[in-house]
Amino acid sequence: MTITGKNLIAGQWSGETQNGFVAFNAIENTPMTTQFADATKAEIDNAILAAQNASSIYSQLPAVRRATFLRTISEQILELGDELVETACAETGLPAMRIQGERGRTIGQLNLFADLLEKGEYKAVIDLADPERAPLPKPETRLGYLPLGVVGVFAASNFPLAFSTAGGDTASALAAGCPVVMKAHAAHPATAELIAQAILKAMNLADIDTGVFSLVQGKSYDISSQIVTHPLVKAVGFTGSERVGMILQQQINQRAEPIPFYGELGSVNPQFILANKLKNDAKEIASGLVASLMMGQGQFCTSPGVWFVVDAEQYSQFAETAAADIAQTQAGVMLTPGIANSYKNAVNQWQNIEGVELLAQGQAGLEHFCQAALFSTDLATFANNALLQEEVFGASALIVKCADFNEMMQGIALLKGNLTASIHALESDIEDAKTVANVAAHKVGRLIYNQMPTGVEVCASMNHGGPFPASTNIRTTSVGSEAIKRFQRPICYQNMPSELLPELLKS
Amino acid sequence: MTITGKNLIAGQWSGETQNGFVAFNAIENTPMTTQFADATKAEIDNAILAAQNASSIYSQLPAVRRATFLRTISEQILELGDELVETACAETGLPAMRIQGERGRTIGQLNLFADLLEKGEYKAVIDLADPERAPLPKPETRLGYLPLGVVGVFAASNFPLAFSTAGGDTASALAAGCPVVMKAHAAHPATAELIAQAILKAMNLADIDTGVFSLVQGKSYDISSQIVTHPLVKAVGFTGSERVGMILQQQINQRAEPIPFYGELGSVNPQFILANKLKNDAKEIASGLVASLMMGQGQFCTSPGVWFVVDAEQYSQFAETAAADIAQTQAGVMLTPGIANSYKNAVNQWQNIEGVELLAQGQAGLEHFCQAALFSTDLATFANNALLQEEVFGASALIVKCADFNEMMQGIALLKGNLTASIHALESDIEDAKTVANVAAHKVGRLIYNQMPTGVEVCASMNHGGPFPASTNIRTTSVGSEAIKRFQRPICYQNMPSELLPELLKS
Repeated sequence: MTITGKNLIAGQWSGETQNGFVAFNAIENTPMTTQFADATKAEIDNAILAAQNASSIYSQLPAVRRATFLRTISEQILELGDELVETACAETGLPAMRIQGERGRTIGQLNLFADLLEKGEYKAVIDLADPERAPLPKPETRLGYLPLGVVGVFAASNFPLAFSTAGGDTASALAAGCPVVMKAHAAHPATAELIAQAILKAMNLADIDTGVFSLVQGKSYDISSQIVTHPLVKAVGFTGSERVGMILQQQINQRAEPIPFYGELGSVNPQFILANKLKNDAKEIASGLVASLMMGQGQFCTSPGVWFVVDAEQYSQFAETAAADIAQTQAGVMLTPGIANSYKNAVNQWQNIEGVELLAQGQAGLEHFCQAALFSTDLATFANNALLQEEVFGASALIVKCADFNEMMQGIALLKGNLTASIHALESDIEDAKTVANVAAHKVGRLIYNQMPTGVEVCASMNHGGPFPASTNIRTTSVGSEAIKRFQRPICYQNMPSELLPELLKS
Repeated sequence: MTITGKNLIAGQWSGETQNGFVAFNAIENTPMTTQFADATKAEIDNAILAAQNASSIYSQLPAVRRATFLRTISEQILELGDELVETACAETGLPAMRIQGERGRTIGQLNLFADLLEKGEYKAVIDLADPERAPLPKPETRLGYLPLGVVGVFAASNFPLAFSTAGGDTASALAAGCPVVMKAHAAHPATAELIAQAILKAMNLADIDTGVFSLVQGKSYDISSQIVTHPLVKAVGFTGSERVGMILQQQINQRAEPIPFYGELGSVNPQFILANKLKNDAKEIASGLVASLMMGQGQFCTSPGVWFVVDAEQYSQFAETAAADIAQTQAGVMLTPGIANSYKNAVNQWQNIEGVELLAQGQAGLEHFCQAALFSTDLATFANNALLQEEVFGASALIVKCADFNEMMQGIALLKGNLTASIHALESDIEDAKTVANVAAHKVGRLIYNQMPTGVEVCASMNHGGPFPASTNIRTTSVGSEAIKRFQRPICYQNMPSELLPELLKS
């Protein structure tokens, strides 16, 4: 495929690329040659207007038509073949196997929503009429769901496929019946364009109005601002940093009409290692945590960042094993130079906090590589330094050495919201595990027992969200079939003749 | 019961009433004698802190214990007997029969949530493990729900029972497992205190921590602001005007942690009278609309405020019947002098808009009474005057006389969000009805066929919400069993031993 460097606006490739921005080769740490056009104000307006115009027909398409569209997108993504993998690898520095796995997950997500649409996208709730009821007759009411309208989606840096152009937010919005205006991530614009090409083909093949999906490229904040404040945009999906997410939230707060903002912004994914587990499996759990931390150089939303352990007999073995494992890790390329820089700064800041000990560092690499780091501290230091409670995006972890179980419970109370927490325990730890679970549940979107937090299953019972900053909208998940609900809303049909009811609500 | 005029803070009656505010006798249009204490900053802090402290136990109570609590509240409300009815009538000017009906609905709501809790408050979604799956084993995941934490609720002026102290927001939050800090409406503080007395008794009888429900009285905006910006408050429910609702929304927007704001702010509840219906039933439909409009002097959220009719042969009969019915209506007392004043101003403003005709007024009454008003206008005037598109709280309606069906469709496009819309049609109107329904559905939370909008059924398939300003949170309903979902959020339990799972998620 030729990369045009342009924006896809309602089926047309549009924009002047010559003074645009360039993608960056993350592996070689050098700018690439293709120029990408920053979307203009007019292009964004056109994309949103075309989406709104397409909405009236798209929102009323039979669910099976939307299912076919999603399946066609996944077929067209596969058709992109190795070029997609190579492009994404170059732009993100992620290895080919990881990108192939992520492509599989992306296709899996599209097909999950297609399955859902074919099975019936929601369960009808119907209350029949009772004309004899006193003092007033009971009307017939049926509860259905309608799409919200145009959705703005922002691609994530760390998942160029699964949380980007045709990722979970796009798939669930399209499944819900909502047109999407997609803001590509400036770190992987060519990957975004390839996927947009696949979606364009799918729109044509599945006879879907090309207003249903537009892709805008750009580095300027004005682009994001224009999308989230546009009166025709009715919901926004975002996965990224707390800093950028809260800028979007504040812009959305300025709107005359409040709309839902689904922002997934950060998580330290605390790990609780209970006494008998530490006693029996100190080495195994330490190595498991380091392996989980090193996934994608710690650039996973669910990376285990803070480990709570009670200082007991096997503590040294635990810490030494983890330190030894960290010391052996190879440095790896990070997603962008900016992320590599932020990571380095965070690690430096932690080293300067009194009471924080640097237990080990991974092998050093080039300037733009992530050198893993393992720190330890005590509860008082953790409590008194807000910085230690913030996510470090990259392969850095902090052991919080608690004097006793009571201190571990105090540690939980200090935590902000998280996507996940894991409890590592033996059967003999069950009473402590209960105590931790009862409190930790209120801090997380997913509570895990004896498994690592990385790896998010895409299924009906998944929840990928949680208390702020894990999510700006605690009642929703961005992964799994429930994610479709973010882009639909209830409507009650009262006393409606069958011809006027949606198919799913007919008796 | 003695009215203390105090705040109920975690089981204690608290506050200095001597320089407080007084309730107002809506019927006699005179201040009453009992003084009510404005809650102090410390009292509100104490209420919220006590609620948070009660939360850890209350959120983990078995659902049947919460059900018993709700049933005990409803029993204690009935125990208040005639005093409750008389007090509410005096404070709101609403007739005894209406208050008795509303009491029945309030008790019905409490019992509906109790039923739901006894049946199982949510449906478990479980994905079993598959250790053989390649490339990675599939973990077991189970999707459950947790309460959000402390909820702030604001009472509504127009439903002193069903949308106030133990109304739908409180009932659904308590059912969800959330403690409630209730802000009484200054127009019916004694009614609020009576209900709070009933809830206090119920907390004691059902062995519920008295931190679970507090009532704060007051007229100062600072009270509301303190509640909605408090870091421990995790959701807010409100029913009232768009003006006040948006002040709360803006205060909530200032929070470091975004929380859901469930505001029901306004609705004109458009009525669409189709051609054959007008031809056959002009008189009947006109009289039906006037009767619906006059419910509670037009002070219903679902009052039919804008009526779209095509100017055809029977139009004059329709308009004349409605005008004649309006002319015969008795003036009635309004909820507060402030509301009566706003109503009068709105009616005066409409009279001064060029192109708007005052077709009829109801019989005049005292200064604080509502004199019904019926206006008519054409589509161009409706389109060009934003004021005509806003809700008038009170018994005023506007007929929009459309030149043809096409103009009626243009009228729909001009509408903001609404709680309801009704289509009035004969079978022979079905094609037009479909066209209206398809477009109007996207403007409303409840779409009604050949019934009046007033009267909200409390059941599983109800939706009381809709696009802004009907609701600030379009994905939720404030009436019916789905309302509980506003105060719960998903959590995924992964690989969790049975002992650590909530009852509903055990295999």
